[in-house]
Amino acid sequence: MAAEAANLHALPASDAVRLLRSGAIDAAALVEACLAQVREVDARVQAWAFLDPDHARAQAKAADEWRLSGRPVGPLHGVPVGVKDIIDTADMPTEHGTVLHAGRTPSRDASVVARLRAAGAVILGKTVTTELATYTPGKTRNPHDPEHTPGGSSSGSAAAVAAGMVPLALGSQTNGSTIRPAAFCGVYGFKPTHGLIPRHGMLALSRTLDHVGLFARSVEDLALLAEPLVGWDERDPDTRPRARIPFVEVAAQEPPLPPLLAFVKTPRWEIAEEETKQAFAELLELLGDRVEEIELFPSATEAWRWHETIMDAEMALNLAREWEAGRDRLSESLRARLERGRAVRALDYLRARARIRPVHASFLELFEQRYDAILTPAAAGTAPKGLASTGDPSFCTLWTLCGMPAVSLPLMHGANGLPLGVQLVGPREGDARLLRTARWLVARVAGGAECARARASGPSTRASSSCSSSATTRS
Amino acid sequence: MAAEAANLHALPASDAVRLLRSGAIDAAALVEACLAQVREVDARVQAWAFLDPDHARAQAKAADEWRLSGRPVGPLHGVPVGVKDIIDTADMPTEHGTVLHAGRTPSRDASVVARLRAAGAVILGKTVTTELATYTPGKTRNPHDPEHTPGGSSSGSAAAVAAGMVPLALGSQTNGSTIRPAAFCGVYGFKPTHGLIPRHGMLALSRTLDHVGLFARSVEDLALLAEPLVGWDERDPDTRPRARIPFVEVAAQEPPLPPLLAFVKTPRWEIAEEETKQAFAELLELLGDRVEEIELFPSATEAWRWHETIMDAEMALNLAREWEAGRDRLSESLRARLERGRAVRALDYLRARARIRPVHASFLELFEQRYDAILTPAAAGTAPKGLASTGDPSFCTLWTLCGMPAVSLPLMHGANGLPLGVQLVGPREGDARLLRTARWLVARVAGGAECARARASGPSTRASSSCSSSATTRS
Repeated sequence: MAAEAANLHALPASDAVRLLRSGAIDAAALVEACLAQVREVDARVQAWAFLDPDHARAQAKAADEWRLSGRPVGPLHGVPVGVKDIIDTADMPTEHGTVLHAGRTPSRDASVVARLRAAGAVILGKTVTTELATYTPGKTRNPHDPEHTPGGSSSGSAAAVAAGMVPLALGSQTNGSTIRPAAFCGVYGFKPTHGLIPRHGMLALSRTLDHVGLFARSVEDLALLAEPLVGWDERDPDTRPRARIPFVEVAAQEPPLPPLLAFVKTPRWEIAEEETKQAFAELLELLGDRVEEIELFPSATEAWRWHETIMDAEMALNLAREWEAGRDRLSESLRARLERGRAVRALDYLRARARIRPVHASFLELFEQRYDAILTPAAAGTAPKGLASTGDPSFCTLWTLCGMPAVSLPLMHGANGLPLGVQLVGPREGDARLLRTARWLVARVAGGAECARARASGPSTRASSSCSSSATTRS
Repeated sequence: MAAEAANLHALPASDAVRLLRSGAIDAAALVEACLAQVREVDARVQAWAFLDPDHARAQAKAADEWRLSGRPVGPLHGVPVGVKDIIDTADMPTEHGTVLHAGRTPSRDASVVARLRAAGAVILGKTVTTELATYTPGKTRNPHDPEHTPGGSSSGSAAAVAAGMVPLALGSQTNGSTIRPAAFCGVYGFKPTHGLIPRHGMLALSRTLDHVGLFARSVEDLALLAEPLVGWDERDPDTRPRARIPFVEVAAQEPPLPPLLAFVKTPRWEIAEEETKQAFAELLELLGDRVEEIELFPSATEAWRWHETIMDAEMALNLAREWEAGRDRLSESLRARLERGRAVRALDYLRARARIRPVHASFLELFEQRYDAILTPAAAGTAPKGLASTGDPSFCTLWTLCGMPAVSLPLMHGANGLPLGVQLVGPREGDARLLRTARWLVARVAGGAECARARASGPSTRASSSCSSSATTRS
């Protein structure tokens, strides 16, 4: 077992759970492997805002003792999870990426942290966030190239999973804060339906737009992480009592029919980089008759403005204390944004809010009539060079506004070798099925890439329309 | 049966239902009696915006044929109901009390109208509303004295029930539009918990503050009317799936312990008239140890401002079309209010909204620890003289803001002989129990009044603290 430990840190969580359950490994070894990887790479990546190795070891030891006592174990028993530093932990600081909250030590776990612990997880540490989960970067760098941004605001969570320091992590998304860093770091990201996972104990920016986000190394792992987090919490008024969603079971199923995807360029297609456009053209070719391009209704172009109005106004409410007591210690850009937010008219805010339902309803028609999911870029391109910006969230805005579930899949690469994310979006409440479709797409692309390899090494007898000819499709 | 018909119009709905079920009367006779009363008194009261006698008769005839066919009948089978003219009816105009919507004929029933029809009710006609359910009066007069306002905005519904023209009616309440006219007209009014009864198909002023309101001649009748109206409707996002609430059964129960009421003067006590203050002093004396006066938390004084901010901003949204296309035909006061609403800042609006939960939580503590209901005036006094104003809604504002259930009980009178309403308020979702407490209070006051009569006619041996000595307590 000691010999295996060297690679344990790179295991997908679902594999780790199987090994932990069978007793082939224990939580102590798994955590030790993660800590070793942190020592190995984190000086370069800087994914962690707080990490106390001894506290992580103590949790692992307690998990192992619990299992050895023969008591029932949860679905994440012994699995290390990173938690974005805007999500409260009773045993670690939570500093929100701002000096204004330096030294903040909440006395209670956020709902999601309590649910992680109930599922048996080891909270490895707190991951770096941008300033108050907005746009001013923290210290984290892209693990694939430290001169590039990891994306944000869940920078540390995405980078930690990508760099093999932890198999699972939690983040958040108010615009593109989960999908974008997942794409830039080349991991699997998942923003479930608004209201599915409670946000109590998490920094609030915008009740209408805030979501919990998930990071993992496979679709199966996203399902494993999502399942225990979903559910009603009276302290989050946007959650609802509902039947348990069997994420793991549904995500593992083969779709009864091959899914049909709706390729949506969105009104932001103009900012997509040339290689993104080319990569999607090749992906569409690979998918053949399983994808159709559709045009969005004209008013969709206004959705970005509606999102901005809502986010500005609600941030002005939720960050009023920071504004009043310490705005001189906020970044200039956040200060400007809050100033703008304070001036938003209620009428414009309410008008923007009132658009969400009809916009989602128009998507719902698409899903009910014909398509299993929307296919669209996760970002304009690969992670931009430089650390002064976390990149453009535009390709996430529309789906966040509507509270629709979205996943980012690391299926492609740019010419620079950096990951290029594919985003799938489903209808609200269609989360488990979206993961099932995502797993199908991952397999389909992997199969396509094998075709491409086969063709490269000799004449292929298979129809070329089912195979990608591009090196940008990940093998 | 023809001989009885002369008084059928004055029957409480629960009695009418029993007679209808037994076959002692039929719906045709009941409707005919109501129509006769309309002919008798409505020239003076003017409660109806629309009433087609033949259409009412046709509905009654259909109800009678249905019953005679032996098919199962609903809880309101054959009972006439008046519907405020802001609630859509597929078979009658719905004109919202403004020339801007003159001749408006919706093609579908509002959710509550559909539920009334499913319960077997006869929609007698549409009752007068103030301008767009706000503050500029319609034509209705107080049935007790036509020189006095009936209150508003549900003026016609309150007056029609009070004047014996219909046993039940629907209204609405965004500030004091059900409780106040019920008090001024001397009928029973009920504003259930926000979100309990769907508002789809009703003129929307304020999603946060709009409620459906109910009018009847007894607490039992309020329960009878409420029960079929409550329930989830996907077209009203503030309703929730929930178990059926057995209003009729619970309201009819004796409380297991004598209820304890919390007398709350509210920060508006200063505007209460002298005779209101005196009447409540006597009511408190009558209730003895079953009532305790409590002080509201200091921030409660701000609740009226929060209500105004929310109502102004949401009205500006919902009446934007009227503002844009026809503001010259709105009353000056509504135009001014909309102008003010259009200038509200989102930050102030959101702050006001954010106060609702904590304010309700502080009331919840009261209810959980000690009290069955809050006792407070329904209005500052009896209906004011004059028809230019519908009176002050202040004594309703706090409970409307919090979405708490409230009833107005016509238990007292002013020196001028006009009714003076007693308001009881419960915690959100505590509607059925509130009606049970209300029924207890009605009986207790009636019992007290008997004591008073007994004492007046000779020496009483009963403790005077359990009896009111005042002529202002209704017999």
